[in-house]
Amino acid sequence: MPLRMSTLFLRTLRDDPADAEVASHRLLVRAGYIRRAGPGAYTWLPLGMRVKDRVEAIVREEMNAIGGQEVQFPALLPKEPYEASGRWDDYGDGIFRVKDRKGADFLLAPTHEEMFTLLVKDHYSSYKDLPAYLYQIQTKYRDEARPRAGLLRVREFIMKDSYSFTVDDAGLERAYADHRAAYLRIFDRLGLEVVPVKATAGAMGGSASEEFLHPSPIGEDTFVESDGGFRANVEAVTTVPPAEADFSAAPPAEVRETPDSTTIAALVDVSNQLLPRDGEPWTAADTLKCVVVTAVLDGEERRPFVVAVPGDRDVDLKRLEAGIGELLEATGEPALEAATEEDLRRIPSFVKGYIGPARVGADGAATQFLGREAESGVPFFVDPRIASGTTWITGANEAQRHVFGLVAGRDFTWDGTVEATEVRDGDLAPDGSGPLRTRRGIEMGHIFQLGRRYAQALDLKVLDENGKQVVVTMGSYGIGVTRAIAALAESHHDDKGLVWPRAVTPADVHVVATGKGEEVFAAAEELVAGLERRGLTVLYDDRKKVSAGVKFSDVELIGIPTSVVVGRGLADGVVEVKDRATGEAQQVEVASAADVIATLVAEGTTHPAGLPD
Amino acid sequence: MPLRMSTLFLRTLRDDPADAEVASHRLLVRAGYIRRAGPGAYTWLPLGMRVKDRVEAIVREEMNAIGGQEVQFPALLPKEPYEASGRWDDYGDGIFRVKDRKGADFLLAPTHEEMFTLLVKDHYSSYKDLPAYLYQIQTKYRDEARPRAGLLRVREFIMKDSYSFTVDDAGLERAYADHRAAYLRIFDRLGLEVVPVKATAGAMGGSASEEFLHPSPIGEDTFVESDGGFRANVEAVTTVPPAEADFSAAPPAEVRETPDSTTIAALVDVSNQLLPRDGEPWTAADTLKCVVVTAVLDGEERRPFVVAVPGDRDVDLKRLEAGIGELLEATGEPALEAATEEDLRRIPSFVKGYIGPARVGADGAATQFLGREAESGVPFFVDPRIASGTTWITGANEAQRHVFGLVAGRDFTWDGTVEATEVRDGDLAPDGSGPLRTRRGIEMGHIFQLGRRYAQALDLKVLDENGKQVVVTMGSYGIGVTRAIAALAESHHDDKGLVWPRAVTPADVHVVATGKGEEVFAAAEELVAGLERRGLTVLYDDRKKVSAGVKFSDVELIGIPTSVVVGRGLADGVVEVKDRATGEAQQVEVASAADVIATLVAEGTTHPAGLPD
Repeated sequence: MPLRMSTLFLRTLRDDPADAEVASHRLLVRAGYIRRAGPGAYTWLPLGMRVKDRVEAIVREEMNAIGGQEVQFPALLPKEPYEASGRWDDYGDGIFRVKDRKGADFLLAPTHEEMFTLLVKDHYSSYKDLPAYLYQIQTKYRDEARPRAGLLRVREFIMKDSYSFTVDDAGLERAYADHRAAYLRIFDRLGLEVVPVKATAGAMGGSASEEFLHPSPIGEDTFVESDGGFRANVEAVTTVPPAEADFSAAPPAEVRETPDSTTIAALVDVSNQLLPRDGEPWTAADTLKCVVVTAVLDGEERRPFVVAVPGDRDVDLKRLEAGIGELLEATGEPALEAATEEDLRRIPSFVKGYIGPARVGADGAATQFLGREAESGVPFFVDPRIASGTTWITGANEAQRHVFGLVAGRDFTWDGTVEATEVRDGDLAPDGSGPLRTRRGIEMGHIFQLGRRYAQALDLKVLDENGKQVVVTMGSYGIGVTRAIAALAESHHDDKGLVWPRAVTPADVHVVATGKGEEVFAAAEELVAGLERRGLTVLYDDRKKVSAGVKFSDVELIGIPTSVVVGRGLADGVVEVKDRATGEAQQVEVASAADVIATLVAEGTTHPAGLPD
Repeated sequence: MPLRMSTLFLRTLRDDPADAEVASHRLLVRAGYIRRAGPGAYTWLPLGMRVKDRVEAIVREEMNAIGGQEVQFPALLPKEPYEASGRWDDYGDGIFRVKDRKGADFLLAPTHEEMFTLLVKDHYSSYKDLPAYLYQIQTKYRDEARPRAGLLRVREFIMKDSYSFTVDDAGLERAYADHRAAYLRIFDRLGLEVVPVKATAGAMGGSASEEFLHPSPIGEDTFVESDGGFRANVEAVTTVPPAEADFSAAPPAEVRETPDSTTIAALVDVSNQLLPRDGEPWTAADTLKCVVVTAVLDGEERRPFVVAVPGDRDVDLKRLEAGIGELLEATGEPALEAATEEDLRRIPSFVKGYIGPARVGADGAATQFLGREAESGVPFFVDPRIASGTTWITGANEAQRHVFGLVAGRDFTWDGTVEATEVRDGDLAPDGSGPLRTRRGIEMGHIFQLGRRYAQALDLKVLDENGKQVVVTMGSYGIGVTRAIAALAESHHDDKGLVWPRAVTPADVHVVATGKGEEVFAAAEELVAGLERRGLTVLYDDRKKVSAGVKFSDVELIGIPTSVVVGRGLADGVVEVKDRATGEAQQVEVASAADVIATLVAEGTTHPAGLPD
């Protein structure tokens, strides 16, 4: 049966929804695929259901093809397994927590590593049972601080998450490769460009990890790529540090008056006046910027620390966040923000604008100032560019004074090294494959070599070939189904509406009857029946009191790849077959129209047959 | 591709799970369809997914056939619409409530009347847009006090819920009839016996309502039926009250000493001694039992009241609960329980065992004792059998004393009439269709003529034919998908395992290869391929190190309608085709086995071809 517009639960909208910032949000709502139901929560309307079902079917087929077996977990789960893994605390504000009528704690799961681990533990006991790849396509929850951008950042969403269980690392690598290949096939079939990039594991834990990013100017992720093939999320880019330098011949550090030089630019100017360097003038890259950052733990405790970066670089809080957890010895994922005036007031030894790692005496002898064990007591970390032997101009911890020639490793030390600076176009790839370009992308999938973290925490062991108990090795792999649809809409639209790829279109053909004559509707009905006999799905605009103009606008807004207009041409025995993507139209004889269209669809091409590719 | 037991994520269990009280729970877990994930929460395993998908497909087809359009709402929803309808309060402890990180209130929806109402309001504005039937198959939540019986009483479950929107009552009746017919077709196709019975609307509101009950001794619902075709949930049975009697000639009431007669039996004995009646002795039916019941509101406030019933009848708390809400002027659904000693102590005027509606003086004059406005101040309700003019023996509100000849409507009144007593086999149907029989059943579906409650509360109006704004009329209709699977397992099993109807079986055929010879597995593979070429789905037991006995036990436990053993018979060119339901087996030539089985499946019969039906 065709979807008939006369009865279809659909009202296309002329105007953009007030809160819509991005194209996918605007168009999916206006074309009647989704409707807002609450903050970060959308209802799937009949057209949207069709697209969702097709995306899910493709994901399912490719997961089954690598031996994945489908199961389905509840979304509302008891706290205990997540406590055992440590994630009950780690997630902080990021998840919805629920109490039942007896006061017991539950969560709405954002991902299911713990439950799958327990399920396999409940089933398997021998290496002979492995490998096992299990997956589900299921509704997940995150308490997003700021839901936005339609389906791109929501609180309730659909994910395919899968988990691999293998007896050793070699098995994990195979499972990871299987999933990686399946993911590339899925995105290819969906018609969605993705770039797999190196990623950090975050709260998930584990070692190797890649994200599949869909390049898009509205993406929230930034990734880099080199001509030599290096690709990584900026958070996973490691800096190529300078070689450690021999500082035995370096002159001693020296404190100078540097009035009104609380900015890097002012400091560079003053430096070039006071102590001009032979050959080349001082630049911002010669100064050491000590930035006070506050880590907020569990949404409450504020813990300031200092990170030192070269003066020509800004701190990238997201990159810093990815690495700082361990250094701070914090449980959970600390959220970072610039220190507030209030944070600074609580550290009386800090002289704003003149903070530096050490105090230097008149004799050039340095005393550590920053650091857990030093005078200030404030933890002190450095970017990898602050290698041992590098020499810096930096704050002297006294008003209107800076120190020159302060040598890292000689005059000061640090509590740890951490990636803290932004990555810039032209920075070198860590693998030596050349300079990096930065691009923005939307995260479509993420695959993790988890290793033994969850199996260890939840005691999932099997007997190996030698009859010895070994902890199982796991991987976890996610694709955002909801988000894939948004990304498809982002990259497949024009100013008139959506332009679906054939693989996910809500119908293969959009048939439009225009005019008032009964014969038009009769001919259109016949064409619809002919298309359906050929196995095509049809959206049929059979509305009688709607103008041709409105119908054509809807064709463009809804975005089905091929449309057919049955109207005026009928007198000459033809209908108009139009391609949504190219706008190309051709007159086709009514009698052969169904065959011509079936061929178009089967060829998966968006060009009417007979036209050049 | 067949499901291969060698790699299928399945471990059948020899032993019943410790917490399993009912057959469906026991067998669905043991046979590897589901696994417990938390209190009242189950994970669907690969075999279970197959059954679930087939049940959902049948529901979807029948909903589409009546013009239903599928959508999907979030489960996590904002409070506001549920506040507007009053259900945010009504649900009390029965739902899960969630706060987001900003403290805003949400719920995990148990049903979606409000959201569908708002969705239609957002889309439609004219009678021409109606009728609309919308449905979803979606995960729902209830904070069950005592999750139990496997999938029968859970906290997270799958329901198909649909909603009809029509311009008037005639439209609602058509929508209701359409859904009723679709439901009967769904249950028929599932192979699940159901009885549609009259029901009460409960928290849902609205007028006409029917439940579809699956008769089962473990059912939590009791329903009645008469030979004349009356069928109702006991909660919806109305008592045929005695005609109001003329009491002008009745003698005055009289208080007597009735030592140690705190039970009805003792009171009857004493009455027959003290004041023997002409013609027939007093029986329990002549006494009036005043039962103290406590309504618990919002899980906290305890509000005792008294309900009077004939002494030969017990109070049915569930029936009483269905009608008491309005009388108590309570928001929410009060939970009823027998008053505790502590409740009673708080009403010092009550003399336990001797409570009655009135105090009677020496002159026979009665003063109201029970009732909101009377001496005790305790609300007082009566069963419909306590009609005006009926005469009773009841407590005198003094120790060791009862009153005789107390006339309802003359000597005492009440705050309201409510169905309070159990329904018994032999009670008369309210429609005059004869005596009732009681049976137990599991609620499989429920359909409601909601009327205008939700549309009114949320202001859903359309223009009618005369250009006048009218409030839309709604119906709502639910089928428990999860529960249907449990009910199917309850009614389709034997002591060895499950016995699936063909419509929902996880595979059409279970092929078992037994023995060690390679030729057995080769022949089985060929048979499997032949079955799949004929469009059948196959579970193939290709395990090499598992005994034939274990494989046969699994065949019976898993319960696929037809099995084929490829084993010893192969030497004679035959395989054994066996029917799970009847246990009948026949030898079939290998060469024709796939055709014979395909015929069996196509015929939908569980008998091998050629055997008598």
